[in-house]
Amino acid sequence: MAAQPPWSPPARKAEEPVLKLYNSLTRTKTEFVPTNGRHVKWYNCGPTVYDASHMGHARNYVTQDVLRRIMTDYFGYDVHFVMNITDIDDKIILRARQTHLVENFRSESSSLSQKLLDDVAAAWSAYVESKVRKGLPEAERPGKGKEREAWPQLSARFQDKGWRQECLKRDEKFEMHFNATNASYTAILAAEESLKAGQTGQEAAHKLIDSSHDVLAVWLDKQYGSTVTDHSIFRSLAAYWEGQFFKDMRRLRVRDPDTLTRVTEYVPEIVSFVEGIVKNGYGYAVDGSVYFDTRTFDRADGHTYAKLEPWSKSNTELLEEGEGALSVTTGRRSPADFALWKASKPGEPSWPSPWGPGRPGWHIECSVMASAIFGDNMDIHSGGIDLAFPHHDNEMAQSEAYHNCPAWVNYFIHTGHLHIEGLKMSKSLKNFITIDEILQRYTARQLRLAFLTQLWNAKVDFSEAFMTTEVRGVEGAFNNFFTLVKALVSQAEAEGPKLDDRNRFQEPERELTDALHNAQTSFRAALCDSFNTPQALDVLRELVSRTNVYINSRGANLDVSVVERIARWVGNMLRMFGLGEGETDEIGWGQERDAGEGTVNREEVLMPYLRSLSSFRDGVRKLAIAGGDRALKDILALSDKLRDTDLVPLGVALDDQEDGKALVKLVPPAELIKAREEKRAQAEAKAAKKAAAVEAERQKRLQKLEKGRVPPQEMFKPPNVPEGTYGSWDENGLPLTDGEGKELSKNQTKKAQKDWTNQQKLHEEFLQWQRAEQWQRAEQR
Amino acid sequence: MAAQPPWSPPARKAEEPVLKLYNSLTRTKTEFVPTNGRHVKWYNCGPTVYDASHMGHARNYVTQDVLRRIMTDYFGYDVHFVMNITDIDDKIILRARQTHLVENFRSESSSLSQKLLDDVAAAWSAYVESKVRKGLPEAERPGKGKEREAWPQLSARFQDKGWRQECLKRDEKFEMHFNATNASYTAILAAEESLKAGQTGQEAAHKLIDSSHDVLAVWLDKQYGSTVTDHSIFRSLAAYWEGQFFKDMRRLRVRDPDTLTRVTEYVPEIVSFVEGIVKNGYGYAVDGSVYFDTRTFDRADGHTYAKLEPWSKSNTELLEEGEGALSVTTGRRSPADFALWKASKPGEPSWPSPWGPGRPGWHIECSVMASAIFGDNMDIHSGGIDLAFPHHDNEMAQSEAYHNCPAWVNYFIHTGHLHIEGLKMSKSLKNFITIDEILQRYTARQLRLAFLTQLWNAKVDFSEAFMTTEVRGVEGAFNNFFTLVKALVSQAEAEGPKLDDRNRFQEPERELTDALHNAQTSFRAALCDSFNTPQALDVLRELVSRTNVYINSRGANLDVSVVERIARWVGNMLRMFGLGEGETDEIGWGQERDAGEGTVNREEVLMPYLRSLSSFRDGVRKLAIAGGDRALKDILALSDKLRDTDLVPLGVALDDQEDGKALVKLVPPAELIKAREEKRAQAEAKAAKKAAAVEAERQKRLQKLEKGRVPPQEMFKPPNVPEGTYGSWDENGLPLTDGEGKELSKNQTKKAQKDWTNQQKLHEEFLQWQRAEQWQRAEQR
Repeated sequence: MAAQPPWSPPARKAEEPVLKLYNSLTRTKTEFVPTNGRHVKWYNCGPTVYDASHMGHARNYVTQDVLRRIMTDYFGYDVHFVMNITDIDDKIILRARQTHLVENFRSESSSLSQKLLDDVAAAWSAYVESKVRKGLPEAERPGKGKEREAWPQLSARFQDKGWRQECLKRDEKFEMHFNATNASYTAILAAEESLKAGQTGQEAAHKLIDSSHDVLAVWLDKQYGSTVTDHSIFRSLAAYWEGQFFKDMRRLRVRDPDTLTRVTEYVPEIVSFVEGIVKNGYGYAVDGSVYFDTRTFDRADGHTYAKLEPWSKSNTELLEEGEGALSVTTGRRSPADFALWKASKPGEPSWPSPWGPGRPGWHIECSVMASAIFGDNMDIHSGGIDLAFPHHDNEMAQSEAYHNCPAWVNYFIHTGHLHIEGLKMSKSLKNFITIDEILQRYTARQLRLAFLTQLWNAKVDFSEAFMTTEVRGVEGAFNNFFTLVKALVSQAEAEGPKLDDRNRFQEPERELTDALHNAQTSFRAALCDSFNTPQALDVLRELVSRTNVYINSRGANLDVSVVERIARWVGNMLRMFGLGEGETDEIGWGQERDAGEGTVNREEVLMPYLRSLSSFRDGVRKLAIAGGDRALKDILALSDKLRDTDLVPLGVALDDQEDGKALVKLVPPAELIKAREEKRAQAEAKAAKKAAAVEAERQKRLQKLEKGRVPPQEMFKPPNVPEGTYGSWDENGLPLTDGEGKELSKNQTKKAQKDWTNQQKLHEEFLQWQRAEQWQRAEQR
Repeated sequence: MAAQPPWSPPARKAEEPVLKLYNSLTRTKTEFVPTNGRHVKWYNCGPTVYDASHMGHARNYVTQDVLRRIMTDYFGYDVHFVMNITDIDDKIILRARQTHLVENFRSESSSLSQKLLDDVAAAWSAYVESKVRKGLPEAERPGKGKEREAWPQLSARFQDKGWRQECLKRDEKFEMHFNATNASYTAILAAEESLKAGQTGQEAAHKLIDSSHDVLAVWLDKQYGSTVTDHSIFRSLAAYWEGQFFKDMRRLRVRDPDTLTRVTEYVPEIVSFVEGIVKNGYGYAVDGSVYFDTRTFDRADGHTYAKLEPWSKSNTELLEEGEGALSVTTGRRSPADFALWKASKPGEPSWPSPWGPGRPGWHIECSVMASAIFGDNMDIHSGGIDLAFPHHDNEMAQSEAYHNCPAWVNYFIHTGHLHIEGLKMSKSLKNFITIDEILQRYTARQLRLAFLTQLWNAKVDFSEAFMTTEVRGVEGAFNNFFTLVKALVSQAEAEGPKLDDRNRFQEPERELTDALHNAQTSFRAALCDSFNTPQALDVLRELVSRTNVYINSRGANLDVSVVERIARWVGNMLRMFGLGEGETDEIGWGQERDAGEGTVNREEVLMPYLRSLSSFRDGVRKLAIAGGDRALKDILALSDKLRDTDLVPLGVALDDQEDGKALVKLVPPAELIKAREEKRAQAEAKAAKKAAAVEAERQKRLQKLEKGRVPPQEMFKPPNVPEGTYGSWDENGLPLTDGEGKELSKNQTKKAQKDWTNQQKLHEEFLQWQRAEQWQRAEQR
């Protein structure tokens, strides 16, 4: 047999590009080398949940989501994306406690009294002293107790923009605090009038309190914060805002993390992690708190403190901010040392520890939770640039101290800042925008497009002008392109193949196809260049322009298939960025989830009402199981009917479970109907068997009853005994002589008497049954 | 400023696996090296379109589709997938011509005549001679002219299964031919009876012809085939079956090729390609045909003939089959030489060429079309294993002869055979199944699953038992898993976060997560191992079992997020194989397109009726443009109304084009309404301008008419002239004297007369207008 000729592998004319990413650990773009094949361990710093998510969150988490999608959906890495939720924190404690105290104060204030007025006025003065004063020009700061007197003049000064801006330079929250103070001041004046006029109702009291919320919150917390013992207020505040956070994220089409870790679920692990650090010589306890010894760590062989921002090591402002508003930092060996574990003061939540009741420091949580999932190394750690120092540097130090490893994180990537209309977003600057607010003005797609047109690690300036011109322009260009291509494809399909023998793949088609292939190469090169999404988007936009030129100039020779292929690829890439929700190879973006048009997801539509139906049913069943008469049986039957009859054709399966909550399943109706038929057939078979058994029993009983049909008086007479068995009988029908007139023997008589007594019983039973039957028949008539 | 410590790239603990594929050019698995970065040029042999697609096509094209999806959607290559349609071919010519001739014969046969009976009988005898005879045992072969006599006995013998199988060994199409002969025989007997009974109607004639279709087709073609001059019959047959092929493919969820090439569109390129081969010394012309010189090519430096199957070089059966039923092969230098260009005989389609009118050989088309798109090299060439020799070997030889290149194809991959219930599928074995038939029994998903459970290059035995047990079992297992996970996720979402501080990511969750990561690695390894889909599916199935065990055993500690993540990944991988149509990260397969449940595509639903509406409108417009009275104007207005009023709120835009066919677009209604408003505002502005001009014109005319209101008889009398201008007038009202009784001068009288005549004209016009106005008013009443 002849052999195949030798074959040699083809030569590469162009190499595949290599993914590089901007690594905060080197501040350069370095080649991405995953440690374990295609598996990528990725930890992302999640939010501290105590308030509504805002544009800063949108920028950070949408950008992380884009990078994650590029890694999984474009580069095909098997990414394990872990994110934490910080649900213990000084901000959460303060917010929860203050809200709780003001609410209590409000509900206890049933009328407007001088006492209430005095309290609010005291709170007001304290607030001016502690919050407003530092922002004022030194010459205009009111003396202690003189705040009320000074206020009208300050209020007038506040109208002056120049003056206001000077104050803002001294304290960036000045405007916010001033406004809160002013609102309370006006309310106090009004309340004093009311009190004079004798209007002392609850409404007036609540009006005063509501207008003085911020002022009271600080004052009440200072007075009563330490008395708060109900620690569930911290958990429920965090849980509420966590829920809101994920609702916002899903609206922005940010994928859920693969694994979500909450600090409150990892406290025992945190305690033993801190113990490990102390044991390794890098931590020390002071008054129930434990601190990380930055100097010892920095001096140790193979370790460096503050790898990300060594130049920030002595930035006390950043260090203090990292420690939180409630921290006590006395006794530390160095100002750079930070809390691993904080002794809890009264009014703060606490968990047991070897150092007494306390709670985790801020940085330790990420070290512990990421280690719990990934161990002593991860490929990528990400977060907002704000967190680089001290949070991420402390995280790395802790983890490397605990694991005794040289590098806990291989690649650290930080998303850039967000500015609004050129300024840092802040509540006091009135440019603070929540995600809910922004989604009323723009779609998720437009927001994502806005972020995609910027480098992930650059500062983004979000402005109305940019959104309405640039972003809507880009969106419109893609929209028009997809609409046109869909129409062309649809027209070509309706017309069927042209039988004119003309080859439509000529030079212009070859050029356009080359343009697509070049775009694919450039697109990949852009994403390999540290996820350069603005450049990648430009590649798509240029390809679309190029294709539009082809469409407009090619006339009757237009080859729809080239155009269609380009539209499919462009659509796939836009969807890969999370800009649409459609299927692979669909022409266009795919649907906007919230647009409410076109495709509807059967599951999303049905589930809410299925759930309400199911819980109604749960209630009915509960009642029926608890109670005990006929009506309750009917309820159960109704609930079976709901499950077995009504919901089956809708494709809904209810699986009853031990805990009384049914598991709701959506199943193809055909499958359910089949299952119901099988169940019914089984039930019928069982019922038939049971009926047969009942019938057999009845027959047996009837036979027995039948024996009693003859009265004992007649049992020894024909036709019940053969003619001539006996000759004569007594008045009870007991035989006296046999057929030949011979007297019965004593034994014979005794047996006859026994049989007679037996028969008497049977006959009695027979008569009873007969009467019952008659009644039953009468009743049925 | 302190500097960052040095960073070194992480060490790889495990390398990324390398894609290898089974290359028919080496008959081993070799590493896949794309020539140009991530770009992959891939040519796939498409169908010859002359009949309905069958299971063999399903196996081949679904398998190619799976490989293509793995390359693009899993490995992320930028694939350019080109496929041809063979729409010139001996089979197409024969099928089209025979169908055409039988149809003509039928329409010309208006009654049952002795002539008709004689024709059919002659055709019948010829068919037995040419088609049935070779399958019969030599001893039982009827002599020429004795076929009718022999038939009753042969028909009886045919009932014997053993006898039948002996015949099938001699000719695998025996059963098919015998059945066709038998049907015609019965019809001939019946027709003879009818003729005797005087029943000579058209119905009887058509009955005879329809039952003798196969028999007549061969006979008519032999007699009249060469007289067929209408070559459009070949094109329309091919176009019809091409349409059916793609309908079937889409139902099987096979993606359209990126570029589709049809032989009829490339004939000029084929001619010049053949010229190039001749010029390079590897082709020679004989009697208007051109052949490839295999021996010269094989002897040339750097060239080898039959790289795929050198051992088949002298397999005359394969060589003959490759040349086609209509070929004339006299004059070839070697039996292995094959036609590049065939001289067309009468009754065959032809194109001009330097060698006279002819048509392309079979193999040349793929060489030419693939070269037209890819040039002198491609990464992958694929096709069914049946095509390896001679088709693919000839293709490579031709292309390497033309381009003078050493290797035209880098990787040749061939999909395996398909058997049905253990036997080769064939019409005569009654195990021939069309795609339409199989899709009535199984879903596209089930069929794709069946192929996925087998190696792409292995022989697949498709059996009822395999489908109903194995495939439905696998499908059911995934179904149950997805249903369960969806229910768990939905329940967890309804319940919200549990606030019990319990860490649910414990050892069992760590183990399950590791199981997922291992599955991801194994899955990749399986696909890298020459697309081992059965192994990849096993990995998914094992992971699902593992996860089910976890769910069933974990109780209240169940961590839904781990399970959800697994379900999402499994769903993504199944969708990647084309087993579902959903979005990335959806839990489950996604929708079955043809299931008709759940998500509906707005576009698919609307388009058909939009198109019918649009063509109705085309018709109305055409009429209106051609005609020319009031009613036609109304039609145009109606058509504008449809476009501008009725379709706008439905989101339908009709763009009128020069060729009279409107382009139909689906656009968000809001956009359309806005465009309509703008258009309306413009139209209104234009109309207002026009109305103003008309009004101005009317005013001007009224002014002029107004001048004629005064009759000439009154014009020189007060109040039309100042009192006392004139003293006396004649009977026409012409002034005779002035106010002072003085006679008017001759000049004055002349002027007055001229004015009078002028005024008479104006007054006449005025009266006409007044009468017209009165009529108009009367009409309006």
